[in-house]
Amino acid sequence: MEIILSINAGSSSVKISVYKAPEVDGAPTQLAEAVVEGLTAPPATLKYERGDVKIKGRELQNIASQEDAFKYILDYLTRDEGLPELAKKEDIHFTCHRVVHGGDYPRSQIIDRETYHHIEELSDLAPLHNAPALSIVRAVSEILPHATNIAYFDSSFHATIPKHICTYPIDQVIAKKNKLRKYGFHGISYSFIVHAVSTFLNKPKDQLNIIALHLGSGASACCIKHGASHDTTMGLTPLAGLPGATRSGSIDPSLMFHFTHEAEKPSHASAGHMHISQAEEILNKQSGWKVLTGTTDFGKISASSRDEDVLAFNIFVDRILNYVAPYFTKLDGEVDALVFAGGIGERGSKLRRAVVEGVRCLGFALDEAKNEDPGDGVVTDISRQGARYKTLICKTDEQLEMARGVLEDRGRFVGKQ
Amino acid sequence: MEIILSINAGSSSVKISVYKAPEVDGAPTQLAEAVVEGLTAPPATLKYERGDVKIKGRELQNIASQEDAFKYILDYLTRDEGLPELAKKEDIHFTCHRVVHGGDYPRSQIIDRETYHHIEELSDLAPLHNAPALSIVRAVSEILPHATNIAYFDSSFHATIPKHICTYPIDQVIAKKNKLRKYGFHGISYSFIVHAVSTFLNKPKDQLNIIALHLGSGASACCIKHGASHDTTMGLTPLAGLPGATRSGSIDPSLMFHFTHEAEKPSHASAGHMHISQAEEILNKQSGWKVLTGTTDFGKISASSRDEDVLAFNIFVDRILNYVAPYFTKLDGEVDALVFAGGIGERGSKLRRAVVEGVRCLGFALDEAKNEDPGDGVVTDISRQGARYKTLICKTDEQLEMARGVLEDRGRFVGKQ
Repeated sequence: MEIILSINAGSSSVKISVYKAPEVDGAPTQLAEAVVEGLTAPPATLKYERGDVKIKGRELQNIASQEDAFKYILDYLTRDEGLPELAKKEDIHFTCHRVVHGGDYPRSQIIDRETYHHIEELSDLAPLHNAPALSIVRAVSEILPHATNIAYFDSSFHATIPKHICTYPIDQVIAKKNKLRKYGFHGISYSFIVHAVSTFLNKPKDQLNIIALHLGSGASACCIKHGASHDTTMGLTPLAGLPGATRSGSIDPSLMFHFTHEAEKPSHASAGHMHISQAEEILNKQSGWKVLTGTTDFGKISASSRDEDVLAFNIFVDRILNYVAPYFTKLDGEVDALVFAGGIGERGSKLRRAVVEGVRCLGFALDEAKNEDPGDGVVTDISRQGARYKTLICKTDEQLEMARGVLEDRGRFVGKQ
Repeated sequence: MEIILSINAGSSSVKISVYKAPEVDGAPTQLAEAVVEGLTAPPATLKYERGDVKIKGRELQNIASQEDAFKYILDYLTRDEGLPELAKKEDIHFTCHRVVHGGDYPRSQIIDRETYHHIEELSDLAPLHNAPALSIVRAVSEILPHATNIAYFDSSFHATIPKHICTYPIDQVIAKKNKLRKYGFHGISYSFIVHAVSTFLNKPKDQLNIIALHLGSGASACCIKHGASHDTTMGLTPLAGLPGATRSGSIDPSLMFHFTHEAEKPSHASAGHMHISQAEEILNKQSGWKVLTGTTDFGKISASSRDEDVLAFNIFVDRILNYVAPYFTKLDGEVDALVFAGGIGERGSKLRRAVVEGVRCLGFALDEAKNEDPGDGVVTDISRQGARYKTLICKTDEQLEMARGVLEDRGRFVGKQ
């Protein structure tokens, strides 16, 4: 029996899901999931689920980094007597690492010395986003030398975006040298969505045309044509496109030079060889609906009638609507579904209503009851009966998508371990 | 008889149109038009038209600034014996100045000492764009002390954009202090377009819903709802939105910090108290289709099959299509017309075809023959018979719009002269 760990490190959290590979065919089975949260606001806390066992909010001492959290969770998992499948570190065959920026990598990569250095190098493009994963990747080959470590990139799914869409109209000599183009992110999630919606609609992936919205504290949209990314809202880095909890999204590229006269100075988040400008720190970490309303919780904002909450809600809806319709025309109206995913996409019924209302002239319409109470399925149809186009909710699962990737990719990795 | 001068100063040219106000009602009549071009690539040349008289390419010595050009043209006009209406400077009653960035000004302003200082102050937001006009404005009150000098702002038309569309999700304390919001530009042109299309369709302005594309070496799109701006592509400055001849348009706001490590340093274009960053200089002056293809001439690019020209063409079409469909949905499908204007919009039949083809699923379609040869009207219908929505070409005229503005605004200015 093979055990797979899917590791997802964010700026203040580490999530690890434990899967068992199937004996024959089929999907991986989740055995347990552990999350350490609050790394930037100690004390960190543990959330743990294994079958009926649920632990929440257990305070942890001296856990202040992604590496600390990883080691703690690993230790916790091997000691959990209810999880005999993972009794010692050597039981782990595969670790999957979600890495945000994968540059030109069109697919997952086994992490050996060479690929590690390459990932580190291209992380210059998005140090703020790649740093959490890299700190765990660094540790893992030491701690789990026997396991196969695989990097899954949020950018890989978008390798199919046509050149005229991913090229910025800037000096191409510098663009090539500095690797400046639209990459796009949230690709592990979009890959899951394509798989799930294709199954749900019983339509082959390579015939599937959808407008997918991954809406969470980071948010993006993707135009998916024949199962592949044709356009997306994020760009060179995750900053472009939609706003997020602490992210501005697209703004006038001149703006930062009028916001501060220290736009280019290194931010306090810079470390070692990683250069992060004040501008990038401000636009990624000190903007978005948090700075407008005081909270990162979009659910609270949606429920409130305070002026600043209504403004933040309306801004988010407006920016989403800036992308739904052009993706509709890029698919020439041949659209199988508009798909809501991510924390806000899955739980935000008011947001879904506002977005769908905003594109009603294209032929989208919601069933109010289903929108309010979509149930537990991986994919749920919330379209009004008779609507010209479908609207779906998809409970996206990046952890499972990586574990599933291991099974698909295994052949490709043989002999490389 | 009242003489009106409409003055339009660009970074390397000055254009002055001479109008006669009507005796009773009606529009101003153009008497002559003079353009001095090539200020940044001497020798500058003169283009002049008065009735049948046409002069082109006359080389000028010692004309190197907007102020030089203004003085030269003024002198030329008063000496032209075929223009007896303007025999001396005192014959000029009104001068209209096109000023790109007007901050919060919702309409034109008489330029007195107070407004001049205010315009100068807010030009910090777009020094690259306001500087040419300001250098003439400075000169004109000295040279034409008896005339009424009026500033027309490209931003005023967009004063109606709703708050949730013009607010950037950034720190609002700094945003308010530094005046950081979406302003929008090309407003004098959009105002002309509304007037012309309203007349053409015989529909009152305040019921007119159009998607207007002003496509020239600077390009933007505008969603016009009930005759007023509801959204537009440009932002805090003209940089945001569509690419232009030397302008990148919207890019990842992080990009400049990966393009150069001197993004924030003052560019050589900085002068006196005007701070222009390297980044703004690069993105406004050293990007766009010029840097991709070597030419600013979009006609040449459209006609070419070289890879880089095809790429530049396709990038422009793609970026335009990013805005047509969302503006369609923001008008809830109640669209009177898609309107092409500006040099490329008016002459680029291949571009129009590609754009309309890109939104055919919404119900737009061209009459190929009319698209190829639209004729001479101010507004021309190039829609295919039976198309659900109209497509129009509008020969926009900012000079005339300003002169017309004088007649409308005269009442407002009484006693302020």
